[in-house]
Amino acid sequence: MPTSLVLERKGQLSLRDFPLDTNLGPTDVRIAVRTVGVCGSDVHYYTHGKIGPFVVNEPMVLGHEASGVVIEVGQQVRHLSVGDRVCMEPGIPDPQSRASKLGIYNVDPAVRFWATPPIHGCLTPEVVHPAAFTYRLPDHVSFAEGAMVEPFAIGMQAAMRARIQPGDIAVVTGAGPIGMMTALAALAGGCSKVYVSDLAQPKLDIIGAYPGIETINIRETPAAEAIAKATDDWGADVVFECSGAAPAILGVPQLARPGGTIVLVGMPVDPVPFDIVGLQAKELRVETVFRYANVYDRAISLIAAGKVDLKPLISLTVPFADSIAAFDRAVEGRETDVKIQIEMPVE
Amino acid sequence: MPTSLVLERKGQLSLRDFPLDTNLGPTDVRIAVRTVGVCGSDVHYYTHGKIGPFVVNEPMVLGHEASGVVIEVGQQVRHLSVGDRVCMEPGIPDPQSRASKLGIYNVDPAVRFWATPPIHGCLTPEVVHPAAFTYRLPDHVSFAEGAMVEPFAIGMQAAMRARIQPGDIAVVTGAGPIGMMTALAALAGGCSKVYVSDLAQPKLDIIGAYPGIETINIRETPAAEAIAKATDDWGADVVFECSGAAPAILGVPQLARPGGTIVLVGMPVDPVPFDIVGLQAKELRVETVFRYANVYDRAISLIAAGKVDLKPLISLTVPFADSIAAFDRAVEGRETDVKIQIEMPVE
Amino acid sequence: MPTSLVLERKGQLSLRDFPLDTNLGPTDVRIAVRTVGVCGSDVHYYTHGKIGPFVVNEPMVLGHEASGVVIEVGQQVRHLSVGDRVCMEPGIPDPQSRASKLGIYNVDPAVRFWATPPIHGCLTPEVVHPAAFTYRLPDHVSFAEGAMVEPFAIGMQAAMRARIQPGDIAVVTGAGPIGMMTALAALAGGCSKVYVSDLAQPKLDIIGAYPGIETINIRETPAAEAIAKATDDWGADVVFECSGAAPAILGVPQLARPGGTIVLVGMPVDPVPFDIVGLQAKELRVETVFRYANVYDRAISLIAAGKVDLKPLISLTVPFADSIAAFDRAVEGRETDVKIQIEMPVE
Amino acid sequence: MPTSLVLERKGQLSLRDFPLDTNLGPTDVRIAVRTVGVCGSDVHYYTHGKIGPFVVNEPMVLGHEASGVVIEVGQQVRHLSVGDRVCMEPGIPDPQSRASKLGIYNVDPAVRFWATPPIHGCLTPEVVHPAAFTYRLPDHVSFAEGAMVEPFAIGMQAAMRARIQPGDIAVVTGAGPIGMMTALAALAGGCSKVYVSDLAQPKLDIIGAYPGIETINIRETPAAEAIAKATDDWGADVVFECSGAAPAILGVPQLARPGGTIVLVGMPVDPVPFDIVGLQAKELRVETVFRYANVYDRAISLIAAGKVDLKPLISLTVPFADSIAAFDRAVEGRETDVKIQIEMPVE
Repeated sequence: MPTSLVLERKGQLSLRDFPLDTNLGPTDVRIAVRTVGVCGSDVHYYTHGKIGPFVVNEPMVLGHEASGVVIEVGQQVRHLSVGDRVCMEPGIPDPQSRASKLGIYNVDPAVRFWATPPIHGCLTPEVVHPAAFTYRLPDHVSFAEGAMVEPFAIGMQAAMRARIQPGDIAVVTGAGPIGMMTALAALAGGCSKVYVSDLAQPKLDIIGAYPGIETINIRETPAAEAIAKATDDWGADVVFECSGAAPAILGVPQLARPGGTIVLVGMPVDPVPFDIVGLQAKELRVETVFRYANVYDRAISLIAAGKVDLKPLISLTVPFADSIAAFDRAVEGRETDVKIQIEMPVE
Repeated sequence: MPTSLVLERKGQLSLRDFPLDTNLGPTDVRIAVRTVGVCGSDVHYYTHGKIGPFVVNEPMVLGHEASGVVIEVGQQVRHLSVGDRVCMEPGIPDPQSRASKLGIYNVDPAVRFWATPPIHGCLTPEVVHPAAFTYRLPDHVSFAEGAMVEPFAIGMQAAMRARIQPGDIAVVTGAGPIGMMTALAALAGGCSKVYVSDLAQPKLDIIGAYPGIETINIRETPAAEAIAKATDDWGADVVFECSGAAPAILGVPQLARPGGTIVLVGMPVDPVPFDIVGLQAKELRVETVFRYANVYDRAISLIAAGKVDLKPLISLTVPFADSIAAFDRAVEGRETDVKIQIEMPVE
Repeated sequence: MPTSLVLERKGQLSLRDFPLDTNLGPTDVRIAVRTVGVCGSDVHYYTHGKIGPFVVNEPMVLGHEASGVVIEVGQQVRHLSVGDRVCMEPGIPDPQSRASKLGIYNVDPAVRFWATPPIHGCLTPEVVHPAAFTYRLPDHVSFAEGAMVEPFAIGMQAAMRARIQPGDIAVVTGAGPIGMMTALAALAGGCSKVYVSDLAQPKLDIIGAYPGIETINIRETPAAEAIAKATDDWGADVVFECSGAAPAILGVPQLARPGGTIVLVGMPVDPVPFDIVGLQAKELRVETVFRYANVYDRAISLIAAGKVDLKPLISLTVPFADSIAAFDRAVEGRETDVKIQIEMPVE
Repeated sequence: MPTSLVLERKGQLSLRDFPLDTNLGPTDVRIAVRTVGVCGSDVHYYTHGKIGPFVVNEPMVLGHEASGVVIEVGQQVRHLSVGDRVCMEPGIPDPQSRASKLGIYNVDPAVRFWATPPIHGCLTPEVVHPAAFTYRLPDHVSFAEGAMVEPFAIGMQAAMRARIQPGDIAVVTGAGPIGMMTALAALAGGCSKVYVSDLAQPKLDIIGAYPGIETINIRETPAAEAIAKATDDWGADVVFECSGAAPAILGVPQLARPGGTIVLVGMPVDPVPFDIVGLQAKELRVETVFRYANVYDRAISLIAAGKVDLKPLISLTVPFADSIAAFDRAVEGRETDVKIQIEMPVE
């Protein structure tokens, strides 16, 4: 039976055996993979063969949103045992690097990240991973939820960078998967209310079903108008820009209150016009987000405590044998698909 | 009919007319008082005649936790209108002071605070108050809830000073009214879980009824042991010390994780032993709290959004005519009484 | 003898009597003006008749960088006395506004700022000003230095917003007056070294004469190359963008280290392209600056302590009678002119 | 010729050969030690045989303040070469620990610190050390200065934790070596002025010789009185408590301004009375310090830039052959001895 999902080259996926080097170091664990989410970046490598400077030059195993079960532990590993149900942080930094020493290992230039060429991903039976980047799941958190921690971690990073204060009012521009994750992280992270704006009503309907989230369909009402009305013309404390769309980016200063915060989560392909004088007039702070660091345990705590429920965002679950079809559906980009997950075979 | 609750001197309350100077300045509003909560400080003035340097030398109207209805607005007031339902921040700083300019008006030495000698409180039919410190209540927030904003604001200030990060685990030592308020503010403010410790099981039962709060009866389990177990020996991210009790204060370093935060909310009467080397060994940060600044709007947002429900903490509501009896009950300090409120007559 | 410098309309200045309403309120002081610096904004109103939405529709007294002597104090003023030598913060916020309560009075939309239409400036014999925004000068700080506090305050605000950590390495792009002020504030504010880049060698020569400042002439070496070399390819901790020039703004991510800070001080006229993905890849924080708040006392302390010497930046001092000529010289924009000051007549 | 300074047991030092295990790992460097400072903790192990839980049960090489020359580099080391002049951070954390991941590796419970039992120190010819914790010295920074980086790093950590804002006024209570280091770090780190208080005039004379430092002999003037006078009764922005003395610790709230910061650097042996209500009344923030993290490069930058001159604090330099005598002199605790250094033989 084939065991791995391999991107052979741009546009061509195959299910086949793909032996990976899996030496277990003293601080590593070996994990049997159980559930893997399909991410937009996986899909982008499939359709475009590259993301920015990262080019698929050789066959590469895809997947980086994963949960599984520990099946072997290195000699020095103390906090994990065989049988532990876990999820994994897919970026492995050099622990001795200057960035890692500062605690910002996500921006270590030497980081090795699953399914980012030439590093293989986790749509494969087993992975060896540093125990320090492997997190135990509480009993009542499912593998499916465990595989949602990775995309949620981006929302968490955005919420961390925002330095939310209790009772803040937030806006999220863009109701894609990351916008939804960010909205939920902001709400659980202390906001009293989160407004999510988008053009696509089906997406707004999904996220708007959560209590505490209000939606703005910008085909009907400009976001700035809706926020001004909701805040007595003061503006939102935090604006999370998750669309990556140039008009939304240009308009962020209008959404924020004097002294407020902008978090740039969405990634526009090229430099885009930015209203610097508009930012200055309110003396706004702008934070940016690159992946995440030190948020997995926090994310799991919030999920375990029931403050964040990611299950409604799992739109479809398929067995590994159907994973190419799952990718092809992801390529369609249906507005009602938030997250598609693949279940690995259990031996 | 008598109209004000007056502390004539230590130990003697009376209901009587007590005309207050109520000139309406251009930036003031006049408010008909509706609901007033009884605070421990009111009770302490009643039983002891003083708090620290503040001594009741002349008859003083009590009360500082209030909601009401705007009945007149000054010429320059823009954001409030006659008929608005409001609650009031009871401390009035000098807006030109050095502290106020910095945004920390709560520590302005010149602040005038209701029911703190020689300033009169609000257990009286009408008060004149700066519009800037008067906050509109949303329609679905009751006067009773409005009068809870003041004590909740202390919990909010503690949560603000803690700089909670999404998913933090917190401990609150001491389940008195302020401990409860702090626990709820911390939970709404982004914590995944809040542990509350106390000796008194009835208090723990009240706060433990909230989802997300877990309780520790320290007669049964030392708090440090419970927290070590709950956090894999890592410790809590934030410890809110709300008991003011010397043993709890001495023990705070044991509850916190390396690099964690202590917030000192409880006020011990005298200097107490502090384990400085214990704090240093984990390089803890210690924040202190003095009343509150810039939290009323946030508190109201969280209540209005349903993220904080203070109604279960209102233990008893009495009409104004029975307010002396209410104070006498408050003196008893029943473990099941969290907040007693007085309703003013509506003309 | 004419007493005020009046901008009659775009392009036309006159020296004439211009009686201003100068009622002294209880918290105000009256100040005899001594020294006034010429700011780029004054010059811009002269040459263009407007800045953004602020249009000179009626004759307006210019000037907002001033020092003087207190000649009368309001009844409630405690910290100032007649005869005190002072400098003045030219923006007067509404002390009861939402922004002022937060301590960010600089972004109060209601702020009234000298020489910003329709508010008159201080090139006039006397001004009445809130005592809270009037700061005493130590004996050994001259009126000329006192009038430099205002432009230096912008550099201070930039340094405050940067949250400099001791030993940080900073870059300032743009060696105009504000770039120079920012470089000196950053150096005094804890940086170990500040690199200043510009095209104009005469400007670099002026600021490069200060110990601790190194200069980069970007006609010879791209700033990114110079900074990479100076920091072992790590990047600067803080980048202060003070040029307002589009290419410099686009290039800021290249100058900063992973996890570093960008402070946008320069004001480009229109939205300019911004390299958001470049910022994200290093997870940079971007701060913006609007005037200043709560920095005057700090600025005076640094000057008084000798940690900042602004005297070398005073390029020319003229008597009031020659002030129109001084403005005309400022219009020339000589590269060696940093600050031109006008001395008011002493009666 | 004997090569190492060995603490055989409490009270007994010897110079003798003491072979240490010095396997060079791929990320390590081997360093020929050149200069080693004598620290109070070294002296305390000599005189008391223990510090808190750390007990000298077997012979131990002393010394942890060191500079030297790289003589061999591990295979993966990139940023250091043979011949580089360096200084070393003496604490080696587990890079995969929870604290290290957060960037606070100083509070990693697993840290191994030179000359802290059972870890040997550096008063020995060669040490093997992780390259990540080894820092190159600029050419014009001497070995003697390099060996001062370690004690200065504690002052730097205090200055970092204080979050100094440009122009802050600071007080340092206690003019021992660490108090002096802290004062210099605070001054270089952005303070406009630093007041140092102590009972011992000779110590005050040494630190008072630095421009920007003012001294307070508390035998003559209480520190609170001096600071009130110097700050118009407002108080200092930051108070660094470096004495560890109970009366000083009790009095810190009186020295700080409303909203100010206390940094507890001194280590009292036992819990001491703390004026919590005094801290709360001004809503002070209290930071604590444990060794240092991520400050060595900053410290070296400030020294190299000439913003900090530590040479005047080197009171005595002796050759290695005299190092026991040097320790005996350090035991005397002369008020004019700040730092005694030992020079290792150069082969």
